[in-house]
Amino acid sequence: MYDMTITLQADSKKCLYEQIYEYIRDEIREGKLLAGERLPSTRALAENLQVARSTVDYAYEQLLSEGYIEAKPYRGYFVCKVEELLRLQGAGVGASDAMQAAPVGQESGQALKGKSKPEYDFDFYPNGIDMSGFPFGVWQKITRNVLSFDNNELFALGKPQGDEDLRATIGRYLHASRGVNCTPDQIIVGAGNDYLLMLLEKILGRHVRVAMENPSYKRAYRIFCSFAYHIERVGMDEHGMSVSDLEKSGASVAYVMPSHQYPTGTVMPIGRRMELLKWAGAKEERYLIEDDYDSEFRYRGKPIPSLQASDTMDKVIYIGTFSKSIAPAIRVSYMVLPKKLLEVYKQNCFFYSSTVSRIDQRILNEFISQGYFERYLNKARKIYKEKHDLLVEQLKPFLKEFRLYGDRAGLHVLLTSKEGIDETQLIERAANHGVKVYPMSDAYLGPEEDGRPETNTVILGYAGLKLEEIEAGIARLKKAWLD
Amino acid sequence: MYDMTITLQADSKKCLYEQIYEYIRDEIREGKLLAGERLPSTRALAENLQVARSTVDYAYEQLLSEGYIEAKPYRGYFVCKVEELLRLQGAGVGASDAMQAAPVGQESGQALKGKSKPEYDFDFYPNGIDMSGFPFGVWQKITRNVLSFDNNELFALGKPQGDEDLRATIGRYLHASRGVNCTPDQIIVGAGNDYLLMLLEKILGRHVRVAMENPSYKRAYRIFCSFAYHIERVGMDEHGMSVSDLEKSGASVAYVMPSHQYPTGTVMPIGRRMELLKWAGAKEERYLIEDDYDSEFRYRGKPIPSLQASDTMDKVIYIGTFSKSIAPAIRVSYMVLPKKLLEVYKQNCFFYSSTVSRIDQRILNEFISQGYFERYLNKARKIYKEKHDLLVEQLKPFLKEFRLYGDRAGLHVLLTSKEGIDETQLIERAANHGVKVYPMSDAYLGPEEDGRPETNTVILGYAGLKLEEIEAGIARLKKAWLD
Repeated sequence: MYDMTITLQADSKKCLYEQIYEYIRDEIREGKLLAGERLPSTRALAENLQVARSTVDYAYEQLLSEGYIEAKPYRGYFVCKVEELLRLQGAGVGASDAMQAAPVGQESGQALKGKSKPEYDFDFYPNGIDMSGFPFGVWQKITRNVLSFDNNELFALGKPQGDEDLRATIGRYLHASRGVNCTPDQIIVGAGNDYLLMLLEKILGRHVRVAMENPSYKRAYRIFCSFAYHIERVGMDEHGMSVSDLEKSGASVAYVMPSHQYPTGTVMPIGRRMELLKWAGAKEERYLIEDDYDSEFRYRGKPIPSLQASDTMDKVIYIGTFSKSIAPAIRVSYMVLPKKLLEVYKQNCFFYSSTVSRIDQRILNEFISQGYFERYLNKARKIYKEKHDLLVEQLKPFLKEFRLYGDRAGLHVLLTSKEGIDETQLIERAANHGVKVYPMSDAYLGPEEDGRPETNTVILGYAGLKLEEIEAGIARLKKAWLD
Repeated sequence: MYDMTITLQADSKKCLYEQIYEYIRDEIREGKLLAGERLPSTRALAENLQVARSTVDYAYEQLLSEGYIEAKPYRGYFVCKVEELLRLQGAGVGASDAMQAAPVGQESGQALKGKSKPEYDFDFYPNGIDMSGFPFGVWQKITRNVLSFDNNELFALGKPQGDEDLRATIGRYLHASRGVNCTPDQIIVGAGNDYLLMLLEKILGRHVRVAMENPSYKRAYRIFCSFAYHIERVGMDEHGMSVSDLEKSGASVAYVMPSHQYPTGTVMPIGRRMELLKWAGAKEERYLIEDDYDSEFRYRGKPIPSLQASDTMDKVIYIGTFSKSIAPAIRVSYMVLPKKLLEVYKQNCFFYSSTVSRIDQRILNEFISQGYFERYLNKARKIYKEKHDLLVEQLKPFLKEFRLYGDRAGLHVLLTSKEGIDETQLIERAANHGVKVYPMSDAYLGPEEDGRPETNTVILGYAGLKLEEIEAGIARLKKAWLD
């Protein structure tokens, strides 16, 4: 029988049983203890090592449970036949080094955009927001209340579609503010639009021909590409997606942003909406995805009703988010399904558990139903309108050489050089003056290999900048582009 | 020109401009105002209605922006040609009724399971948990601190993979407690395992032949089914998935739970793990998905290292969650990708934004890195072990007629009738005594139409029950099954 001489270190931070366990394990791994070999009895080894027998028992127990050794009744412990053990050498090692090395997760494109880079003094980032009006205190208070009573039920897994209260609240909000017609049962709460689109893939099926305006929201395009979806780039006029082109495209689903198209800012007039709905109504498999991403922010007239509000044929899939209206960090979006698709969801997707913590759902529900959301929105609107108006005012001197548009709503505007100066040149000149503006070409769809289309348009977001920054930034752009 | 006589109600809760806007809109919708017809000038209408001109301006502005009317320079406002307007009649109506009707969202199967139903006094629900040891106060305190400084950056959209701090913390935790070898860069944080599997579909591709043990975790099965995945049901012996059957199945990916298979409780010995790793290493496209769903809870020896810890060939996709160890409501799971797949992720999936709010990520990171998680786990382990030991103790009288297994770890045990009493009968008899136990057949894979396999085994979860409830519940089962 194999004679085991283990030198135990009393001072080691590893307890004795661990040292014994690891010693024997390594002996087996390194092939010094061979399959079938018998181990000393726990009593023998305990005496031999001058440790409590229970210590050895514990070590053997561990080796047993991991399958290094087996116990044969009345005969003792034997080393198992473990295949490929030699391959193991070095496994489990190097990890800690790896942990030290700990390379920083590479930032993805859109994550990078998230913050302005040092070399820029002013970043007109289109997806910035201004949280200065956000009632952190209230959010805290609500959070505290929600957490204060330790409520097992609240910590249990919620309904896949989201909690009823929140869905009812969202339903009321959407009906009041966007004219959306739905029952809470049609609403699915999810952790962001990207997730909801993934879920929608499971509902609409795998091989959908989806039409998108061009330019459009690039992330949605990338997501559809990552599905088996075939994407039809459909042209748009000043009213939005061209329905005749849509008809020609053979698409069965159209993704649109009727209230405020990104990036062009086009607001789809009721006539075009009707044409779209008529198109969708003409065939059973046809649907419209309405991405109502920033409809909360409008500076003239009241918000335009949603396309879904005009849908009498159960054809509009309505998607909206609190990431824009509250904060990107709030990963809560909602999707309103037509009744037909709701059935499909309940058939095929009921087992996907909710992606939003119930605590967050409860907090959000309180925030909205207690009227804080409304108040915050009004505050945010005021803040954004002030910035918007200042920006538009400051841009007046540009209007001889630039066309300004997309300024009726949303949190960005577009500037097109009338003299046809290329966007890259505009961006470069701005950069030389420490100002970051964004290329329209980013929003054009199509495989990267196609390269960027030529545009003379840049996008300026203003939500994330302070008033004085907007003023100073535009002053720089004046130097960069007009002098 | 169309003569407009609008009767305005000063007492209406609708402001004047809205009344004017809606009147004209409806006139157009109902075809009383025809395309091309000219509207009165804002001045004329303002005088006519005895309202401020700005009120009319505002109403027209709204009609313009919604596309009901158009403004022709120097000529005035004209009704647009709006297709299909008559279809619109009734649109936007019925909503409020619908909102009142507000049918309750149908509960999905697994959501239903979430709570015990009234007719049961004791519910041995396998996915229950015990939050009694949870430091709500600490969680609150951390939340308060995280929210206290209004931190724009925290409210901005985070990295798609999750925040670096949290990933580093998870990496350290996984290395220390599970022997997982990875860099934070390999970790993807997501809102639940279901979501991470959806993401994995985008990484592994659409047509994967995936092998699952049978019985196995039914939700994972359903999710794979909802993909284009072809599922191979592979038999298992007392060591877990049969590698020879796996080889025969032609699968390229195997989904396993080596530390504690659900529902059988099998702990895969190192030998079988090596065989699996060898299988995976044999072909480039092969991978192992390790679902380490409840490894935190073990009652003998220290936790078994993960399969990933033994992986020297970059073949294991490791998935774990805090939903089990902290609370189902905490929708935070993590996936450790092999480096090869990480590249694919960065190529094809970088644009999927994170599904976990940064606030929650920050709170969780503080909770773990300040040592509270460790402490809570130890507390929870103690609580669960006490329940586990009591349950096993109470079940002793059953051992003549039942085989007890799956009791080394996890939060449930299995009982098999030696006399071959069918599970349905066992469940029925238990139900007659007000006790809910769960059928093993639920965990068997295969299309519903195949019907349930015959089993003589029931599943008893105990995490969600109080000690006295366990005692009382088992006493009832004794009456139900033994007397």
